[in-house]
Amino acid sequence: MVQNNSDSEEFPVLKEKTTLYIKDTFLDGRPSAILIDDTGSIAALGEDAKQRKNEAEYIIDGSSTLAIPGLVNMHTHAAMTLLRGYADDMHLQEWLTEKIWPMEAHLLPEDIYWGTKLACLEMIQTGTIAFNDMYFYSDMAVQAVDEAGLKAVLSHAIITFGDEDKMEKEIKGTESLVSVVQSKNNPRIRASVAPHAPYTVPPEHLEWCAEYSREHDLMLHIHLSETEHEVLEVLEKYQKSPTQLLDETGCLHENTVLAHCCWLNKDECRLIGERGSHVAHNPVSNMKLATNRAMPYHWLQEAGVNVGLATDGCSSNNSLDMLEEMKAATLLQKFYWNQDTLLPADEALHMATAAGAKALRFGTGKIETGAPADIVLLSLNHPSMIPMHNPLSNIVYAANGGMVKTVLCNGRILMKDKIIPGEDNVLEMATKCVADLLSRAAENGIKS
Amino acid sequence: MVQNNSDSEEFPVLKEKTTLYIKDTFLDGRPSAILIDDTGSIAALGEDAKQRKNEAEYIIDGSSTLAIPGLVNMHTHAAMTLLRGYADDMHLQEWLTEKIWPMEAHLLPEDIYWGTKLACLEMIQTGTIAFNDMYFYSDMAVQAVDEAGLKAVLSHAIITFGDEDKMEKEIKGTESLVSVVQSKNNPRIRASVAPHAPYTVPPEHLEWCAEYSREHDLMLHIHLSETEHEVLEVLEKYQKSPTQLLDETGCLHENTVLAHCCWLNKDECRLIGERGSHVAHNPVSNMKLATNRAMPYHWLQEAGVNVGLATDGCSSNNSLDMLEEMKAATLLQKFYWNQDTLLPADEALHMATAAGAKALRFGTGKIETGAPADIVLLSLNHPSMIPMHNPLSNIVYAANGGMVKTVLCNGRILMKDKIIPGEDNVLEMATKCVADLLSRAAENGIKS
Repeated sequence: MVQNNSDSEEFPVLKEKTTLYIKDTFLDGRPSAILIDDTGSIAALGEDAKQRKNEAEYIIDGSSTLAIPGLVNMHTHAAMTLLRGYADDMHLQEWLTEKIWPMEAHLLPEDIYWGTKLACLEMIQTGTIAFNDMYFYSDMAVQAVDEAGLKAVLSHAIITFGDEDKMEKEIKGTESLVSVVQSKNNPRIRASVAPHAPYTVPPEHLEWCAEYSREHDLMLHIHLSETEHEVLEVLEKYQKSPTQLLDETGCLHENTVLAHCCWLNKDECRLIGERGSHVAHNPVSNMKLATNRAMPYHWLQEAGVNVGLATDGCSSNNSLDMLEEMKAATLLQKFYWNQDTLLPADEALHMATAAGAKALRFGTGKIETGAPADIVLLSLNHPSMIPMHNPLSNIVYAANGGMVKTVLCNGRILMKDKIIPGEDNVLEMATKCVADLLSRAAENGIKS
Repeated sequence: MVQNNSDSEEFPVLKEKTTLYIKDTFLDGRPSAILIDDTGSIAALGEDAKQRKNEAEYIIDGSSTLAIPGLVNMHTHAAMTLLRGYADDMHLQEWLTEKIWPMEAHLLPEDIYWGTKLACLEMIQTGTIAFNDMYFYSDMAVQAVDEAGLKAVLSHAIITFGDEDKMEKEIKGTESLVSVVQSKNNPRIRASVAPHAPYTVPPEHLEWCAEYSREHDLMLHIHLSETEHEVLEVLEKYQKSPTQLLDETGCLHENTVLAHCCWLNKDECRLIGERGSHVAHNPVSNMKLATNRAMPYHWLQEAGVNVGLATDGCSSNNSLDMLEEMKAATLLQKFYWNQDTLLPADEALHMATAAGAKALRFGTGKIETGAPADIVLLSLNHPSMIPMHNPLSNIVYAANGGMVKTVLCNGRILMKDKIIPGEDNVLEMATKCVADLLSRAAENGIKS
């Protein structure tokens, strides 16, 4: 057995299938321990794990930590980390047309690689082990995620506004991504089909997406009813709600993730529940961009919809910290719907873990025997984690990503005692990419 | 000159009036340096500071940090850290009557001491250097703040519901606190007069508070219009708005801090502006307790009111992280008032620094020559601080308290490289206080 000292700042170099034992952590409010087998699954918990600790080849000291399931970010545009803080506090249309789109037009494949690496780094550091992405040059994102060690569903965003030539290119982009992902043969990475939204992709193109996703058993990932404006546009153009339009084009199925959903009515919530589709709540992004209505969590809950949590991209958040996002979710729901008991702490944690894992089909999102060892150890040596009347409350209302100490994904250690191998290189390369991006944009007359 | 290595984890032991030099930090987006004289004031900045660096007896390495003014928390109940997470996700009335009040009835003076020490520790760790408190056994809070090294305005909360005997006790409590603060003779600590709210303290008692505060040149600190319910109660009872009532009893003056103000109308905002009183915005607490309306920041701004930022107590937040609170403020304002340009990053930082410092009369809240050296160094070695398109945006939208590296208050180092002397002892003693508190409460049949 490899003996180790948790105070050491060395990151352990372990062979691929090392069995692990996390000792002295707290789980569900009680002292516990976790044994992880050589397939990266949880083999035993608590007393059972203690009895079998000699099976482990490497020990992680979990003292003064709380073990929670790895967090799942259900809607991201990961490489937009490169545009973090580039433009804020603007009207949505000006922000998009004068700032974000002109700058995105200058992004190169290499930027997507380093932008996604930076996102993965931030996600690991703040306890996220899986995410659901929509962007472009996504083969570069595949490479970044493969190296970073977390799980992701990646997609090539499809925006056509009805243009057939554009659609042909988007189909090729999607097919190419699917083939890149297949050739990687990495169970942590999957491709999805990602029509941008009902107001940017017309019914005939949505139909292709629906058919392709069903045929290849891929997730369909789409924005839905983020702003009132887009809902009214769809209603006027098609005389039906965006959700009805998705249903009629075959896009609402059990492997569909609908991002935002701020402006759903009760009937739409029921329809989503009947079809078994999943919803990704983005509270910080929705507040920052002033959507003026919060996702109707209580109606979706009544309709039995699986609702997960997400940060959205870094230009509309501007961080990827899912612990902060949990707090934002419960605050926004309570405030907007005027119900001080809505979305209590246990449901917020479920949203950020089990609900996301279910939608993304990455295990159960729970720390239980047989589940993949997707585990986050939160440090209890912080004043804001004292006292511990209720661990769930401290996790949701008092913690932030800064309290994440150690992160495991599929039983592989991604961060230990706050150390992530290669961190400095990613920060340096991402900084360099942004400098080059700004130079290229400046050559074309775009001011930073 | 004492040479030192910023990578060392040793906290420097310095004599009282050591002159300091912060080298290689970033200030207002540019490389800079800060020279601090032996009175704890900023003596020089940038090139001027570099020229005079030999005057310094001790050097703080500020490389890879961003210097921002120390944060000011304008409304707290500091010792409520002990009740962090004790009760959440409940209806306001049940939460107060069944949970918070019965537990508060069991608090001892020693609990206030350790609860305030825990709050000070969390505040220093997350970059706050001054706060404005309202609680009880406040002489114990004076002791805690004196030792912790930050600045505070402390008060004995006055709640009478018209009871004259109670008022006599509250007057004695206030006078006693004022005398304890005077005898301390610590320029970092001041007393205030704190009638709880217009719906809990009748006009004749408010009049005493107004007179006493003017006579002794003390701040008057009061809750105002947090819930719609209390506003309607005051309107029905007195046929005037809570703000009018405060004005007629003399409570609206230039040394008044009004906490919450969610339900103000435009006329009330104008009146507050005319009187020169200050407002403390509590966005997280307001969302968590579902006040159903956000403080009308734009009306207060139009009326020229000085608006600062606050966390409220730990049972309605549940952290004291002012960096998180800045983000919450700008998100809530944009979302509730449906204006995506409202409360931009620069104004949010002003709210959390200069506005609070002005209201509490603790300097300018700016890093400028002649100002007290209340300085926070934020670490830039975090993925969420990369890239740096706009430092202000990263501070407000991407940072949290976990990025605070070093904190100075009046030129005294309170935290260096994340080390705060005596931290472990405070965490241990606060934990013990809570265990004892729960035992005492359990003896009286109160379940935890």
